[in-house]
Amino acid sequence: MILELAAFSIHSGQNSAFEEEIQRGLQTVISNAHGFEGFKVNRCIENPQRYVLQIFWTTLEDHTVGFRQSPAFAEWRSIVGPFFASAPVVEHFELVSKSN
Amino acid sequence: MILELAAFSIHSGQNSAFEEEIQRGLQTVISNAHGFEGFKVNRCIENPQRYVLQIFWTTLEDHTVGFRQSPAFAEWRSIVGPFFASAPVVEHFELVSKSN
Repeated sequence: MILELAAFSIHSGQNSAFEEEIQRGLQTVISNAHGFEGFKVNRCIENPQRYVLQIFWTTLEDHTVGFRQSPAFAEWRSIVGPFFASAPVVEHFELVSKSN
Repeated sequence: MILELAAFSIHSGQNSAFEEEIQRGLQTVISNAHGFEGFKVNRCIENPQRYVLQIFWTTLEDHTVGFRQSPAFAEWRSIVGPFFASAPVVEHFELVSKSN
């Protein structure tokens, strides 16, 4: 399993609408993608317009190829894209260790 | 519960030593801090010198006041600090939503 971290800021004053819409996008689009294993949406305490979205995928290619090269990617971006104040910064991670 | 995200890069060629030492620091120092609830160490696939450390705390102040203003903070930094190629970027997050 790999972790996608997508960091971005949204336009001011849109937190409630954004949080409803990203939830809808995650449940109706992302959750149906091949290799999807889970998500968390996190809002930054120091800067409430900033979010970090975590998505767990079975493999890197499930995200970078399977999802991004499918029609679902455009559908997802049509839901969340209008809120973005700039392009999201997306990175992928392997788990090195964790607490018990 | 809040999430601390600490993003940083380490000097090249030190991944194995760093991963052993951060594990030791987390187990012997961070895990004993008041309000500590768990950790994950993640290594970036696109840039293997880059890591994101997640630490879960009961409250923001458990990290920013209780931990950072205790002697344990210097002890922790003495373990992991020598590996850092630059100062870590630290932010705190509230969970908005997650998958079932």
